[in-house]
Amino acid sequence: MIGHGGGGRLSQQLISNLFLKYFSNPILNSLEDAATVMLPQRKIAFTTDSYVVTPRLFPGGNIGKLAVCGTVNDLAMRGALPLYLSVGFIIEEGLSIVELEDIVRTMAETTNTAGVQIVTGDTKVVGKGAADGLYINTAGIGIVDETLHISVANAQPGDKVIISGTIGDHGMTILSLREGLSFKADLRSDCAPLNGLVKELLRFGNDIHVLRDPTRGGVAATLNEIASSSNVGIIIDETSLPFKPQVKASCELLGLDPLHLANEGKFIAIVAKGVVDHLLEVLHGHEYGKDAVVIGEVTDTTRRVALRTYIGSTRIIDVASGELLPRIC
Amino acid sequence: MIGHGGGGRLSQQLISNLFLKYFSNPILNSLEDAATVMLPQRKIAFTTDSYVVTPRLFPGGNIGKLAVCGTVNDLAMRGALPLYLSVGFIIEEGLSIVELEDIVRTMAETTNTAGVQIVTGDTKVVGKGAADGLYINTAGIGIVDETLHISVANAQPGDKVIISGTIGDHGMTILSLREGLSFKADLRSDCAPLNGLVKELLRFGNDIHVLRDPTRGGVAATLNEIASSSNVGIIIDETSLPFKPQVKASCELLGLDPLHLANEGKFIAIVAKGVVDHLLEVLHGHEYGKDAVVIGEVTDTTRRVALRTYIGSTRIIDVASGELLPRIC
Repeated sequence: MIGHGGGGRLSQQLISNLFLKYFSNPILNSLEDAATVMLPQRKIAFTTDSYVVTPRLFPGGNIGKLAVCGTVNDLAMRGALPLYLSVGFIIEEGLSIVELEDIVRTMAETTNTAGVQIVTGDTKVVGKGAADGLYINTAGIGIVDETLHISVANAQPGDKVIISGTIGDHGMTILSLREGLSFKADLRSDCAPLNGLVKELLRFGNDIHVLRDPTRGGVAATLNEIASSSNVGIIIDETSLPFKPQVKASCELLGLDPLHLANEGKFIAIVAKGVVDHLLEVLHGHEYGKDAVVIGEVTDTTRRVALRTYIGSTRIIDVASGELLPRIC
Repeated sequence: MIGHGGGGRLSQQLISNLFLKYFSNPILNSLEDAATVMLPQRKIAFTTDSYVVTPRLFPGGNIGKLAVCGTVNDLAMRGALPLYLSVGFIIEEGLSIVELEDIVRTMAETTNTAGVQIVTGDTKVVGKGAADGLYINTAGIGIVDETLHISVANAQPGDKVIISGTIGDHGMTILSLREGLSFKADLRSDCAPLNGLVKELLRFGNDIHVLRDPTRGGVAATLNEIASSSNVGIIIDETSLPFKPQVKASCELLGLDPLHLANEGKFIAIVAKGVVDHLLEVLHGHEYGKDAVVIGEVTDTTRRVALRTYIGSTRIIDVASGELLPRIC
């Protein structure tokens, strides 16, 4: 049970016994006010996310894995090679040390898989009732090739829209756990670090126009952001959308649109038409890209996202106006 | 009243109406998954802190000012020139939009004062009771001169210990508000960005051995960290310690040791003996350094911090073992 955090000796013990045990590296271990590192180049990507997911443990991951993958993926979506993470823990007094250690261990494993280092961190403990167990913020730094222009504003009419795998796995997993749905045994979050896969795609250089991971708000929100920022239209084919059968069945049962469900190990790539076949080949050779498919294309109509349905009609895909499901990540 | 955060349209409105209104700059406004920036050089400092202070508003600042100053100061303490911040908001449903806007406005003003930009951010809204109003995480990036070696492990016997101003102002201000003490009218947090002052000190190069801001745990914890990391002793003179009279009086009334109180606009500098006079002159010419004094020196005894008292005796200054006051920052 945790009751540390005022900057005293107990805080120091939490840091050295738990965080340094798992995250140990020469930069972090110096425990300076700020880490100093020498970057291999000057152009960087920088991002942050706070993670407040409930429940903290779910099939396929936990809040710690999510906190590493989410930030690594946000860097990768700019074509960056992620290098360094910061981590800030906000811990509610009374959180089990055993649970915290499990989460910290998973974070360490995930940073190893992703090839990044946690170099600086902070821990705050708040009183009982002032948080819901544990919140984690991570920020990340990666380096970006100066010649790359991957951007949400870079989709061009004629481009193809690719999704790297099945849609809605994370969102439906969390939803089923929260609602205590009986079919949850088949569901598993797709939470994964995508930087390795993205690195392989960088050989296509600026034929990759947009990379974006459809997390909160799902594929629908992400496609709308792209259409809006790039000032283009996007049309996707319902028949091409990849789903795990159990996710599809759950959505039908609950009357949910899977395009609004969060994903934590998928990206949408908008690419020049000419490289699609070769690019899919590369994706299919990778664990996290094996189910990648073309789901649509970019058009010159303005800022609308449309779905061509099974029966041949067309409907507009909009952003959800309220919270479909809060605290999904 | 806030009820946003699921990645839908309401989230987008919060971002564009509030955050972009105050934090607007070309990098942030692109709303990419990660900001990309070209750094002027490759050696950087990187740090993070979460801010959970209660109350959120206090004489001298609020949680937003603290979130900018704290991270800017952590960068400055490595001799870095802070450039870019990330910000992550965790907002409890029901927080007043008016209060949030005040805090965001203060953050924007403080970044302007400090000369840094918020280039990437994230907002999460959690349900009623799942946070205490508002928590803010900031991470920061600064550039560091490659020839500088300012480090908590760099104190050397014979060095002088300088504090940049009065001790305990922030901690006593928060304490008085929390406890509803009647003398609170005289107290004011010292919360301030120190990077401008530190930049002026950098002319002394590696004659500055250690810079550290005595926040959580106060001067006592900071001196102990320095002694331990540098494997030296430190002796300070009680007669030389600078206090505002109202802070000193409050400590005496409450039986508190001001060396354990948090500061948010002060640093401890450990410097080569030969540059002390000139360095104090520079400090005294600056708003945040005008009360700077030498409070002691580094010795070759091992890892102990001692205080020479008014009456000439010596006592060991230890780190507080528990929480003197949680949620001070």
